[in-house]
Amino acid sequence: MTTNHQQFLSIAAEGMRESAIRRTGAVLGSGRDIISFAPGYPAPDTFPWNEFGEIAAELLGGREAGVLQYGPTRGYRPLLETIVSMMEQRGITTKLEDLLVTTGSQQGLDLVARVLVDPGDVILVELPTYVGALSAFRNGQARLVGVPLDADGIDLSALDAICERVRGEGGRVKFLYVVPNFQNPTGLLLGLEKRQRLLAWAEHRDVLIVEDDPYNELYFEDSAAAADVRPIKADDREGRVIYLSSFSKTLAPGFRVAWMAAPPALAAKFEMAKQAGDLLTGALDQRLIYEACRRGVLARQLPILRAHYAHKRDVMEQALRRELGTDVSWPRPKGGFFLWLTLAAALDADKMIPRAVEHGVIYVAGAAFYVNGEGHNTLRLSFSAPPPERIEAGISRLALTVRAESEALATAAATAAPEAS
Amino acid sequence: MTTNHQQFLSIAAEGMRESAIRRTGAVLGSGRDIISFAPGYPAPDTFPWNEFGEIAAELLGGREAGVLQYGPTRGYRPLLETIVSMMEQRGITTKLEDLLVTTGSQQGLDLVARVLVDPGDVILVELPTYVGALSAFRNGQARLVGVPLDADGIDLSALDAICERVRGEGGRVKFLYVVPNFQNPTGLLLGLEKRQRLLAWAEHRDVLIVEDDPYNELYFEDSAAAADVRPIKADDREGRVIYLSSFSKTLAPGFRVAWMAAPPALAAKFEMAKQAGDLLTGALDQRLIYEACRRGVLARQLPILRAHYAHKRDVMEQALRRELGTDVSWPRPKGGFFLWLTLAAALDADKMIPRAVEHGVIYVAGAAFYVNGEGHNTLRLSFSAPPPERIEAGISRLALTVRAESEALATAAATAAPEAS
Repeated sequence: MTTNHQQFLSIAAEGMRESAIRRTGAVLGSGRDIISFAPGYPAPDTFPWNEFGEIAAELLGGREAGVLQYGPTRGYRPLLETIVSMMEQRGITTKLEDLLVTTGSQQGLDLVARVLVDPGDVILVELPTYVGALSAFRNGQARLVGVPLDADGIDLSALDAICERVRGEGGRVKFLYVVPNFQNPTGLLLGLEKRQRLLAWAEHRDVLIVEDDPYNELYFEDSAAAADVRPIKADDREGRVIYLSSFSKTLAPGFRVAWMAAPPALAAKFEMAKQAGDLLTGALDQRLIYEACRRGVLARQLPILRAHYAHKRDVMEQALRRELGTDVSWPRPKGGFFLWLTLAAALDADKMIPRAVEHGVIYVAGAAFYVNGEGHNTLRLSFSAPPPERIEAGISRLALTVRAESEALATAAATAAPEAS
Repeated sequence: MTTNHQQFLSIAAEGMRESAIRRTGAVLGSGRDIISFAPGYPAPDTFPWNEFGEIAAELLGGREAGVLQYGPTRGYRPLLETIVSMMEQRGITTKLEDLLVTTGSQQGLDLVARVLVDPGDVILVELPTYVGALSAFRNGQARLVGVPLDADGIDLSALDAICERVRGEGGRVKFLYVVPNFQNPTGLLLGLEKRQRLLAWAEHRDVLIVEDDPYNELYFEDSAAAADVRPIKADDREGRVIYLSSFSKTLAPGFRVAWMAAPPALAAKFEMAKQAGDLLTGALDQRLIYEACRRGVLARQLPILRAHYAHKRDVMEQALRRELGTDVSWPRPKGGFFLWLTLAAALDADKMIPRAVEHGVIYVAGAAFYVNGEGHNTLRLSFSAPPPERIEAGISRLALTVRAESEALATAAATAAPEAS
């Protein structure tokens, strides 16, 4: 007798789906020459390999138990103190009791869902927004309600109207999830004045804000400055904001070291949820990150990374203008890893994927970032990982794909037309 | 206006409590000379520091992107293949589609709760059992029902009666959670014949078994052999068993690398839950563990660790016999990290903790391992981390504590007696 496993699944598990980004991994594993603009990977040639090698040798040579032992769930104390200083530089005053090291910001998003969300609770999200957050929130059986974006980020009057409508229908709004700096997937920067108004709105409507800020330090100096990325959390006097950030984009993601800051009453619950979730974040990883901060490796990296990614953004924009001209549009990324492309309305980026793979290029179709079924003619391009010449070649391939798809659609329409008449 | 954070908590978060083991960390942080038998830490002087140092230098010197980059949620492919071989040595045939690398076995327990448990679902657990599992299951809002243990592990007739009683009351039994080898906290070894009968029972009653096996290889050669630790999963023909094991006790816990094996339909759901939970287990950590396996470091460690922990068990048992004689009793640990002590019925191990700290020793009070309020006169002693001379000194302190507590109780009873008459 074989076992019927379906009967044992939780309601959450029945609804679990593979993420759109991770699915593209299968294509890349096929061994073909495919240029990937799909995952938001940092450029591995920028990793400070030598410095990490030296630090690892010293840490393991020192034979201090804590380097390889279990440790506190909150995180390695000196790393937490370093984070207090980093937060200060971003304009945020925190105490140790506010902070928690997380196993990547993905764990932070998961903890947020577990501590704040009961099935059916409403989370307000940007249209579009980060798919990893959507997965974590969906696993908590949240009801996700989308809010449209303007050129400078979330549309505040739409936000308020949507929140009131949801409440009028009896919905329980727990928080707004927002990525203020170089948003994933659109690359948009939330305006400074809007940040203040967003905070005032959250106070007025008595909701929380979950501010996800992995790209804070990766502004491009020709189009943004440190003042432009000031977190919403910096002006949070009432404990409205749960703030997440990470070392994944600035040092390396393989360490899985990130952090969150929250009002102490919530931070204590996040700690308990993490305790039952994975006990602690990797001990060696935390020490490596701490030492990289203490020795100035991170500080030296930041200007290098800003220039590196700004250059790749330039290369991608130039290639897009040359290859696709006015057939596509996008908001100029002022930082981060992503360029958000809108195709002609007739095109469907998800249906176009087989043709893209055929031409040797891959991206993430935009619809996965929308909770309301929109975005069929949008797609996300990550310019962060591929070298410049691959970005150029990849955009050429994308242009061939778009033209072939447009022609195929036109042919199909012409063939279908007589039947319709 | 300050924010009322309580109103935003999920039902699960309202119920979250700090673990009994982690609470003892505060005592240890006080800076006093306290000998800790509390957490189940491996002995850091046994860690293969030099080998890890060499491996880390090679990995980081090689500058291969995957060492520090994002990677597949299932785990690093060569590590998964290594785990297939390790499982084979334990008598378990697995394919890659059955396996998932987890961020410690604690994550495995958490994934089990999320994929299998809806609020109110029943999980059967041993009396007593591992508190970390209880935390993960409680966060999934499971109803935990305890099953008593015999000297050779779980009482099968009680198990069946309890399962049927729960079902008679309308309860939905999802699985039995069992630690067959050198159980945490009792150190008990589940009898081989019982393993077969347990599997047959699960098939007959159509429930799953979650088999947690972190101590598999740490049997003590004077009292157990490899044949005695054969997992239940080894004879699982129907896909009844979800199996968890770890490198935390045999290589080092700071890496947070463990694994689970499950029927493919469930493994796919565990992967999706992990994807939204932390994306992947640390990339460098997985490579370090893989290389330690490939280069034979793990194989060389195992006999050393068996002898190391068996010796510490001996030291603790001798000290207990000398210092506490017949005032206490315990089952002899045949492997693992733990000795389970039963005090005189009048004593309460939890209430005795302040006196123990005063005498400079700490343990975990047994009640936290029971889901039914029993175990007040039991406690868990970990002999794994302290050096032998600290074990001896710690047991002397424990004996002083127990005697002082007994005398205080006797005095209180004598004083109270006249009032009662």
